[in-house]
Amino acid sequence: MTNTQHHPVTVLGLGAMGRALAQTLVKAGVPTTVWNRTPGRDAEVVAAGAVSAATAGQAVRGGDLVIAVLLDHASVHQTLDPIAAELSGKQLLNLTSTAPEQSRELAEWAAVHGIDFLDGGIMAVPSMIGADGSSILYSGSETVFQAHRPALESLGSAEFFGTDPGLAALWDFALLTSMYTMFGGFFQAAALVGTAGVPAAEFAPRAAAWVSAMASSLPRYARIIDSGDYTGEVFQDLVFTKSALDALRQAASDAGITAEPLSGIADLVDRQVAAGHGAAAFERSIEALRGH
Amino acid sequence: MTNTQHHPVTVLGLGAMGRALAQTLVKAGVPTTVWNRTPGRDAEVVAAGAVSAATAGQAVRGGDLVIAVLLDHASVHQTLDPIAAELSGKQLLNLTSTAPEQSRELAEWAAVHGIDFLDGGIMAVPSMIGADGSSILYSGSETVFQAHRPALESLGSAEFFGTDPGLAALWDFALLTSMYTMFGGFFQAAALVGTAGVPAAEFAPRAAAWVSAMASSLPRYARIIDSGDYTGEVFQDLVFTKSALDALRQAASDAGITAEPLSGIADLVDRQVAAGHGAAAFERSIEALRGH
Ligand SMILES: NC(=O)c1ccc[n+]([C@@H]2O[C@H](COP(=O)([O-])OP(=O)(O)OC[C@H]3O[C@@H](n4cnc5c(N)ncnc54)[C@H](OP(=O)(O)O)[C@@H]3O)[C@@H](O)[C@H]2O)c1
Ligand SMILES: NC(=O)c1ccc[n+]([C@@H]2O[C@H](COP(=O)([O-])OP(=O)(O)OC[C@H]3O[C@@H](n4cnc5c(N)ncnc54)[C@H](OP(=O)(O)O)[C@@H]3O)[C@@H](O)[C@H]2O)c1
Repeated sequence: MTNTQHHPVTVLGLGAMGRALAQTLVKAGVPTTVWNRTPGRDAEVVAAGAVSAATAGQAVRGGDLVIAVLLDHASVHQTLDPIAAELSGKQLLNLTSTAPEQSRELAEWAAVHGIDFLDGGIMAVPSMIGADGSSILYSGSETVFQAHRPALESLGSAEFFGTDPGLAALWDFALLTSMYTMFGGFFQAAALVGTAGVPAAEFAPRAAAWVSAMASSLPRYARIIDSGDYTGEVFQDLVFTKSALDALRQAASDAGITAEPLSGIADLVDRQVAAGHGAAAFERSIEALRGH
Repeated sequence: MTNTQHHPVTVLGLGAMGRALAQTLVKAGVPTTVWNRTPGRDAEVVAAGAVSAATAGQAVRGGDLVIAVLLDHASVHQTLDPIAAELSGKQLLNLTSTAPEQSRELAEWAAVHGIDFLDGGIMAVPSMIGADGSSILYSGSETVFQAHRPALESLGSAEFFGTDPGLAALWDFALLTSMYTMFGGFFQAAALVGTAGVPAAEFAPRAAAWVSAMASSLPRYARIIDSGDYTGEVFQDLVFTKSALDALRQAASDAGITAEPLSGIADLVDRQVAAGHGAAAFERSIEALRGH
């Protein structure tokens, strides 16, 4: 199963994601050593061809690249702090979901211990790993990224965002922020039509198509935001937006539902109008998030 | 320019939208009479072949179908109340953006005066009218909808949602709710990557692709919502969702930005977890909007 193209890799953590990563690496011909805190979660990956280690320290010896895919930032330190000496001189990839500041902190910790650190944000669920649509964002050490690129590409599309180790997490978090907020808007909208007896399943396909169509205008919004000029090209001004959002909130209230998901953007718009920017473009709402 | 297939139509209101509608009707061969409160906004449509009337009452006499496309609900009453007698026996289509409850009120007013009432929600900007991508949602009198279907289809895709005159507005408002909330999420996300110097224009295409990909899962969410069973099929539970949303809010705060757009959905999730539904599916958040 080994492949001269690939350096050996160690996977620390065999939760749902760790197992999916290890399985996919083995399938791609990467020599793979695995470890999990609680024993007994390695059966499937060992059957596929991975080597199981009894301790994290032993596991680390098996790989040039060590991938940590644990629960959270704290569990990464709990697992890696005691084996910092074994990790020294190795390459470390953190695929645990950590916040940008936590990824930066891990990079500093790694630097102190002579460990070359790459961070990654997985934009996929375990069943997608190795399949079309799986995408992992990377930032930190470009040396680590390039050295293991073929193995990383076996997991999903692999993109390097820059040497700031917090960048991958920042993009990851930004995309998740868009996603959860969009889901909130869907819940709000589905609840609204639901008050007239419309099933969510009847509304959902049209909502999906509409949201996708509207999302295609985001690059135009971005252009205005980056220009910092919100009065030159005003497609929709803030006073108009405020009256539209007021009507939408009123309709929710008339229908007997609360309006938290919509209230976020409405509050930004209200603050901009109150600050005297009513004639400026809707895109100026982003400045309210920055306290401007 | 007349076409035996089309009944004559009157357009009340020559704002940006009224002018686009009148132009498109004339182009489609519909005999079109127009009126606007402030004179002088009819030059273009008259040049195209429309007949201009000096008063709303005179305009109404020119059409079997009268389309009101005014500023808001109040302006519809201000314009139509004095000419209720002229409208009696005619068909009325309200394309002014009115809330579901306001559309229902107009339908009642129309019924009292012997006017057959159809309401519509325009999912397009004026430049899109008559072109691909323009869509108008209708509800109320199906007789009016069917009688003028060819003329209505010249404006954009025409769909009838039901006899409740508030339904078109309800769908319209629900779609706009999804849209504005999604834009709020984008502003939040763009502000977050912006703190690391990433231009919004670099982030926007990926955000658009990601939001579209995630929106494609809305029908699956809808199925769970309609079932009312949030514990049978749990793809992502509320405790996991809460920790993800807490991390996203923390990252915003670490980056020095506020988090109103994301806070809406986070508040719903927090309330569900606090009410003891942590093991239930994320989709249960919608129940928080309904006060459950
Ligand atoms: N699943 C997804 O859809 C998905 C998507 C993108 C990113 N991620 C991220 O990937 C990471 C792993 O996710 P997952 O789905 O595999 O989670 P999971 O199934 O809950 O597994 C968690 C893993 O972390 C280990 N762990 C927890 N606390 C530990 C500690 N203090 N010391 C050592 N090991 C510890 C667990 O070991 P035990 O077996 O001993 O408990 C287990 O291997 C998370 O950061 C998650 O956010 C997941
Ligand atoms: N534009 C869009 O992108 C869009 C998209 C979807 C739906 N809509 C809806 O379409 C409707 C019209 O929009 P628009 O873009 O045409 O707006 P607009 O350009 O601001 O025009 C408003 C129209 O309403 C008239 N009006 C205002 N108050 C009046 C009153 N009290 N009595 C009589 N007439 C009055 C104005 O007449 P004067 O010339 O005399 O002021 C003008 O004809 C609105 O409800 C809007 O929400 C617009």
